[in-house]
Amino acid sequence: MSSGPNFSGEAVAQQVAKSREDYLSQLFTLLRQPSISAQNTGTVECANLLRQTMEDLGIATRVIETAGQPVVYGERMRNPNAPTLLVYGHYDVQPPDPIEAWHSPPFEPTIRDGRIYARGAGDNKGQLMAQLLGVQTYLTLYGDLPINIKFMFEGEEESGSVHLASFVEDHRDLLRCDLVYTSDGPMHESGAPVVLLGVRGMLYVELSRRCAKWDNHSGNKGNVVQNPAWRFVELLSAMRDPRGRVLIPGFYDGVLPPSDHELAHLRSLPFDPAQAAKQAGCASLNMDGETYYRKLMFEPTFNICGFHSGYGGAGSKTIIPAEATVKLDMRLVYGQDPDDIFEKLCAYVQQFDPEVTVTHLGQMRPSRTSADLPVIQDVIAAVTAAYRLQPVVMPSLGGSLPDYVWTGILGVPSVIVPYANSDEANHSPNENIGVENFFAGIRCICHVIAKLGGA
Amino acid sequence: MSSGPNFSGEAVAQQVAKSREDYLSQLFTLLRQPSISAQNTGTVECANLLRQTMEDLGIATRVIETAGQPVVYGERMRNPNAPTLLVYGHYDVQPPDPIEAWHSPPFEPTIRDGRIYARGAGDNKGQLMAQLLGVQTYLTLYGDLPINIKFMFEGEEESGSVHLASFVEDHRDLLRCDLVYTSDGPMHESGAPVVLLGVRGMLYVELSRRCAKWDNHSGNKGNVVQNPAWRFVELLSAMRDPRGRVLIPGFYDGVLPPSDHELAHLRSLPFDPAQAAKQAGCASLNMDGETYYRKLMFEPTFNICGFHSGYGGAGSKTIIPAEATVKLDMRLVYGQDPDDIFEKLCAYVQQFDPEVTVTHLGQMRPSRTSADLPVIQDVIAAVTAAYRLQPVVMPSLGGSLPDYVWTGILGVPSVIVPYANSDEANHSPNENIGVENFFAGIRCICHVIAKLGGA
Repeated sequence: MSSGPNFSGEAVAQQVAKSREDYLSQLFTLLRQPSISAQNTGTVECANLLRQTMEDLGIATRVIETAGQPVVYGERMRNPNAPTLLVYGHYDVQPPDPIEAWHSPPFEPTIRDGRIYARGAGDNKGQLMAQLLGVQTYLTLYGDLPINIKFMFEGEEESGSVHLASFVEDHRDLLRCDLVYTSDGPMHESGAPVVLLGVRGMLYVELSRRCAKWDNHSGNKGNVVQNPAWRFVELLSAMRDPRGRVLIPGFYDGVLPPSDHELAHLRSLPFDPAQAAKQAGCASLNMDGETYYRKLMFEPTFNICGFHSGYGGAGSKTIIPAEATVKLDMRLVYGQDPDDIFEKLCAYVQQFDPEVTVTHLGQMRPSRTSADLPVIQDVIAAVTAAYRLQPVVMPSLGGSLPDYVWTGILGVPSVIVPYANSDEANHSPNENIGVENFFAGIRCICHVIAKLGGA
Repeated sequence: MSSGPNFSGEAVAQQVAKSREDYLSQLFTLLRQPSISAQNTGTVECANLLRQTMEDLGIATRVIETAGQPVVYGERMRNPNAPTLLVYGHYDVQPPDPIEAWHSPPFEPTIRDGRIYARGAGDNKGQLMAQLLGVQTYLTLYGDLPINIKFMFEGEEESGSVHLASFVEDHRDLLRCDLVYTSDGPMHESGAPVVLLGVRGMLYVELSRRCAKWDNHSGNKGNVVQNPAWRFVELLSAMRDPRGRVLIPGFYDGVLPPSDHELAHLRSLPFDPAQAAKQAGCASLNMDGETYYRKLMFEPTFNICGFHSGYGGAGSKTIIPAEATVKLDMRLVYGQDPDDIFEKLCAYVQQFDPEVTVTHLGQMRPSRTSADLPVIQDVIAAVTAAYRLQPVVMPSLGGSLPDYVWTGILGVPSVIVPYANSDEANHSPNENIGVENFFAGIRCICHVIAKLGGA
């Protein structure tokens, strides 16, 4: 561990400041290359450009074909005994539509008011380049890294990461590491950095029930023909009580309630009730911060995404609907397995009414990495040093990301440290990353490398 | 009562047989005149034609304007002490679309295979003309009627009888009578006549609930934003138990369970379980005839006509719906008052969730006439004699008709005796009435007149 102990955040900051034009220029080159996975536009060119960029930085890199868009994999291995960091990111971007809403062309990066505007600036090319330029900074200052580092940049994150799990399954040895480190998404709206340690999983099903070949006259047949909407009201009531507790036996198997320490931590997270209600388009959410975060991070959902049966137009139509359809998504917390939940749900529905059809429409496993792990404590310390601000440590996210491929398939800790500003407008016109957010990201990965290397 | 005692069904049958060509010709004249209330086409011409026809038969007739289509009112008053029969019918018809599906033009009546094909042949001009030609037959044979008779033919039954209730309210004296007699709809599919003595009423409401200004992300907000679809599952579960019993306090106030005598009668009604299931498009209805008719005639419904919330397209969309809408119709049995039920429902919903909006979309009061009344026993006897078949006596219909205007507003017994064949295709292309059904109807009203006149 040659360079670790000598690491100086001050030196890193100076080196980054000295290299601003060069670093921006390297980022702009990547931003100018369209790489729209949904439209299969420019992705191969972008993968090759990225491979060349990484090679130029001294990272041994290759493009690996998949059944979808290619993966760009690079590594800089020091020695087998040093810790190994796997950096994950993606080089593909969302389509830029509607083009006319952009103030400057989406693939001509432009700096205005301290922000870099371009499709992919925040999501994810700006954050991805910060990781690579951190390596360049580190090498310039110290000649070598104190750790082994691997980079896996996929090209279809914006299309659902369809082949990510199978890629990880098929390349366990190649990807073996001690920690997976991802920079994607926004920092906290207060400007504080975020350290995210897990996500909820998901199971999505559709229930459908047909009671007759056609809608029947609600008078002529009312009371003698079954109504599938009523069947679903009864089934749903039997699946979840009015307090929100799911009644399917075994649904909560494996779920751990938050510890006192975790609850205390939830209470410490920034929470503005008025702002939270406004963001949800509600008058009020009627809960405190601890409850809010506990419900989002530590409790599964059992949500009706859609319920459709019978007449929905204006005025009245007097029918007994022939059919009803309900779409449900369950956000699963750590300890719940979507395969297991699906099986239990099917058995429960089957017992209630064997004529209900259950269709599996998607699933994702939850993930969680303990904040108590030494490697995570190291990341938190490094982020704190880089930003000179305490990060907001989030035990989980309400939504779902394929983070389980690291914690579940590779079986290693995983941490997400976003570099982009909270108003990065990812997926929208005028996507951007703050110029200083970009440079702070470069400094941040230097601190992480140093800390993991023993600094 | 000059003619009553001398009445002979045989003489009536001979007179009708002798007059076939004339009677068909009179019906065809009426069928050739379009009278589509929904399109305001030909209704005034038809009302005037009908008035002239009635005048020619010796019925003092006038056309009375309403806020909608005119009413044709006629009477032949014998003396104030004789019983008075009010015959109700309608001269308007459904639109004939789709024209190309007709085998002969809808307003050029054509006889094929023993049926008269034309728009209105069954619904209701054929049945209406049978009533008038019964009077002609009776007068030809006996010179006078043994009762007072009044005719009220409206011109907007096919548009919901919008002004019927107010017309009856405004013309109580004019319409005063001892019995209202309607011939509309089909006979029993076995070919037996039907004597119908009531209908269920109706109350139609829409419930809607908004929980947020927009659909929220089911992960990012899942568990912290209220879901209106769940609110409605809970509300509906609190409104009706899984056995179908409505839980709104007072919902069943005033409802009389069927008497043992009525239940025995229900058991005697013709019921083919396989046929009933087939007509409803179901594999099976899983009930016997007594249950079937009890549920249709003596029990109110609490039916979901539509339940719509959130995503209903293909595949998955992960949202918490902003809004949910439920349409409910309640078929009310005799003793229930829609105004009272609406008030109780609103109070119940308000108590459950004051943010649910309840919209009143329509209502109709139920009606019932006792089969034990002497005047109804007379009608049953007359129908039995006319058809030489026991009629199927139905205490109620599952559906709703504005029969309450007679039983509720006028406060008199009301009976419906359909003349058309069960496959009359009313409201459909190739509407028809069997030639023999038409003539049997003429004979039937003669028997009814005679019986009420003391024969």
